[in-house]
Amino acid sequence: MEHRLDAEIVLSAPSSDVARLKATVAKLVEEVIPRTVGRRGEASLVECSVHGEKLRLTLESSGARPHQLLLALVRRLAEELGRSEKIGVRSVRAPRYRVTFPLDPAPKEPISLPIPHHLSFADGRATLELTDLDEEALRDNWIDRAVTLVEEKAGRQTYAGKEQFWSLLQQSPPRQHAFNQDPTEEMLKRHWVRNGPTKGKWFLGPPAAHLLRTMERIALDEVLRPLGFQEVVQPHHDSFEILIKTGHLEGVPGEFYYVAEPKSRDPADWQTFTDLVAITHKVPADELARRVGPPSAVSCYAQCPTIYWWLSGRTLATEELPLKIYDRAAVSNRYESGGRHGLERVDEFHRIEPVYLGTPEQMVRLREQLMERYAKVFNEILELEWRTAWVTPFYLQQSGGAGTEDDAEKVKGTVDFEAYLPYRGSREEVEWLEFQNLSIVGERYTRAFTIRSPKSVLWSGCSGIGLERWMTAFLAQKGLDPEGWPKRFYEFAGKVPAPVHFL
Amino acid sequence: MEHRLDAEIVLSAPSSDVARLKATVAKLVEEVIPRTVGRRGEASLVECSVHGEKLRLTLESSGARPHQLLLALVRRLAEELGRSEKIGVRSVRAPRYRVTFPLDPAPKEPISLPIPHHLSFADGRATLELTDLDEEALRDNWIDRAVTLVEEKAGRQTYAGKEQFWSLLQQSPPRQHAFNQDPTEEMLKRHWVRNGPTKGKWFLGPPAAHLLRTMERIALDEVLRPLGFQEVVQPHHDSFEILIKTGHLEGVPGEFYYVAEPKSRDPADWQTFTDLVAITHKVPADELARRVGPPSAVSCYAQCPTIYWWLSGRTLATEELPLKIYDRAAVSNRYESGGRHGLERVDEFHRIEPVYLGTPEQMVRLREQLMERYAKVFNEILELEWRTAWVTPFYLQQSGGAGTEDDAEKVKGTVDFEAYLPYRGSREEVEWLEFQNLSIVGERYTRAFTIRSPKSVLWSGCSGIGLERWMTAFLAQKGLDPEGWPKRFYEFAGKVPAPVHFL
Repeated sequence: MEHRLDAEIVLSAPSSDVARLKATVAKLVEEVIPRTVGRRGEASLVECSVHGEKLRLTLESSGARPHQLLLALVRRLAEELGRSEKIGVRSVRAPRYRVTFPLDPAPKEPISLPIPHHLSFADGRATLELTDLDEEALRDNWIDRAVTLVEEKAGRQTYAGKEQFWSLLQQSPPRQHAFNQDPTEEMLKRHWVRNGPTKGKWFLGPPAAHLLRTMERIALDEVLRPLGFQEVVQPHHDSFEILIKTGHLEGVPGEFYYVAEPKSRDPADWQTFTDLVAITHKVPADELARRVGPPSAVSCYAQCPTIYWWLSGRTLATEELPLKIYDRAAVSNRYESGGRHGLERVDEFHRIEPVYLGTPEQMVRLREQLMERYAKVFNEILELEWRTAWVTPFYLQQSGGAGTEDDAEKVKGTVDFEAYLPYRGSREEVEWLEFQNLSIVGERYTRAFTIRSPKSVLWSGCSGIGLERWMTAFLAQKGLDPEGWPKRFYEFAGKVPAPVHFL
Repeated sequence: MEHRLDAEIVLSAPSSDVARLKATVAKLVEEVIPRTVGRRGEASLVECSVHGEKLRLTLESSGARPHQLLLALVRRLAEELGRSEKIGVRSVRAPRYRVTFPLDPAPKEPISLPIPHHLSFADGRATLELTDLDEEALRDNWIDRAVTLVEEKAGRQTYAGKEQFWSLLQQSPPRQHAFNQDPTEEMLKRHWVRNGPTKGKWFLGPPAAHLLRTMERIALDEVLRPLGFQEVVQPHHDSFEILIKTGHLEGVPGEFYYVAEPKSRDPADWQTFTDLVAITHKVPADELARRVGPPSAVSCYAQCPTIYWWLSGRTLATEELPLKIYDRAAVSNRYESGGRHGLERVDEFHRIEPVYLGTPEQMVRLREQLMERYAKVFNEILELEWRTAWVTPFYLQQSGGAGTEDDAEKVKGTVDFEAYLPYRGSREEVEWLEFQNLSIVGERYTRAFTIRSPKSVLWSGCSGIGLERWMTAFLAQKGLDPEGWPKRFYEFAGKVPAPVHFL
């Protein structure tokens, strides 16, 4: 990468000796280059001029970022000028910041950015120029993030229309299925479930709740507890800060249920609203909107982000590794809009989410152990027809990348577990239901949340056990009548309570 | 109550025979009086005039509501005029609707209403006049609701400043306490818990999560399952419609966490937002607010409303009674604002909520059974110093009423369970922690949700088992070290996992 940065430093007063000021700048640039640019490339001061209290510089570099050099220079300059001339530094900004980087092929469609910029492509390279960056934008490294965004957008154009990466890993033998109906329809008929009062959410009556808890117990007793996983109880609101770190807020903001706080808890501030509700028995929308703050968090989307947050900034003792944690307290929400179907694709679901951290070797080993235990549950207890597939993980999708065939990289990524749903049609032709997944994400989240191990690189991963999905996969193949259920499952379930009898 | 209603009916055309029209109106009023007013009072048409296509009436009544009479009249009039003159009814409204009702003493402070009105007091009576009510306001019975609101507001003035009704029922003997510190502070020191990423919410690490689940198991195994309670899994979003029926939306709108949906799930509609997040790693508040809809629901405040909703409109078979249900899936939120303290008063908590429906006799009996089982847990397993008190229930507070000393009514109402927290100071002087409650609400919710039994009046009730509260009460008295714990509790808890060891 080639960088050119035009900077303007405003001093608290003009210097009395312009020549000395320019010499000081040149000296300080040489001084801070080793600390900021180091071996990551070359950098140089190509222009320096003084106009009253304004100092204009141009820095060029290859590889390293000149704004880091600039910020270090400003700190040292303030020290030196303070001592020698009692002059301070008022502000620093970059009227122009240009970077040239490889980008091949050039994107076919225009690429937009939400900040002032100029972007051009030539000879397998892109040139991005940002204008008028303030000190915060320089400190927060907007230039790098803007380059990444351009690369991602170009990447998405390249991969647009291509299927999500999907590669079969293992497949159970086909089974004979006792049932070929939509299990949700059947549960509705029998009063096992009722469509909830808000979109895509369900009320599970006693028989359905019993089955959901049976699935939970199987996952805990047959997978997580034998492997030494420990339970935590996490908040079911995710903060924006956490979702920025994981990339979710950038990735799926249209899939969250947002949470907003009342502006006041004082009943006096709500009086018109409550009086109107009392008289009209309706929600006065404007009166409500005025009293509720802007969205300040989201309802749990996935549990792992908040588990990483819990460990953020910590160094884990070696004897704690691999650290094996799970949460089953947070209820998950996803705004599914048009995609809802029965209990298979819902806006609210209950998931156990195991999260694990350790050395790469520990993570590879734990992944094998989890896969074995899951396979045992699906083959011997639920007796499912199922398969596993290697899929492009979320974070690679988001960064415009794609799956890889490289064997060494295959451990880092996501395995989907899919079940055949007979009611959808022929097993060869229909989409199977993803009812489970398992990921190893390398250092992605341990770095984002600064979680360390004293002796090793720290990898992590997580696995989503969707209880509604387990239940739907099972009922779609086995039906709702316990006579058709596998013996070992029946031992776990015990007697299923009858639905409440309505006249 | 005395009513006087001025109404205006607009026809699709003037009648060709004004005298006959007036006679028809008079005849129809006599016809519909028995059906609408019946034995509930007297009613009469005191004025009737015709002005082109406008028909002006004045109805007076005592006891019964004249707007019901009016609406029935309009329906019949449309039939008759349609047949005889091919004239329809365009609209009906009430320019003035006056009601006089007993209100003694008269309120000292002015009473406000959020709709146009005039309110006066004389001789132990109030006269409320509403103006310009449209057909919807007449159908939705605004006049009655406005009267109730005036009565409530007057009642609140009378009781303002008086303490919440509180009357000791039972008290365990004092105990010696091994611990006198704030248990949350101690849990923080030992890394058992961490303050969550959003307000008033906590992350429970393995030891604290283990204790919370132990409390849950004790409640399930020692109280609910032996009494035949069945689990359901309910959505953790409460709809506005449900909260209007229970009175919560009118009662505590400043204590909800509101939920809002994205306006679109399409990534293209979010592009500026996601690009800004990518570059700035901050939330662009305006861009977000523009893309999120108005509040459309709330995060669970209490679980019973949605359980009643599940049964709404149903008739329960006699053999189902008493119906005993509980939910432990919905996570509860309350916006506590300034009142937060440790794990005792939080914005998010985990509660098991049993709900029960049956004949009054069944409810009285079940209440005794629950009280016995709770007492056994608190005396013999947790070995708490605790007491019970009779308190003004939520719905009476909301309607401006107060507790009662009447024995027959004592079953209908709420019992609070309170535990002494030694760290707060002397047991005689400090506030104890409400860690549990139990209510019988009579027909209040079965009526609101139209839940019926074929042979009997249907009563209901609920009981909130706050797991964080159970845990705090226990730890505040027994401390965090298992050596100090009662033997039977220790049997339930088993080995408590060590906190994760951070370097």
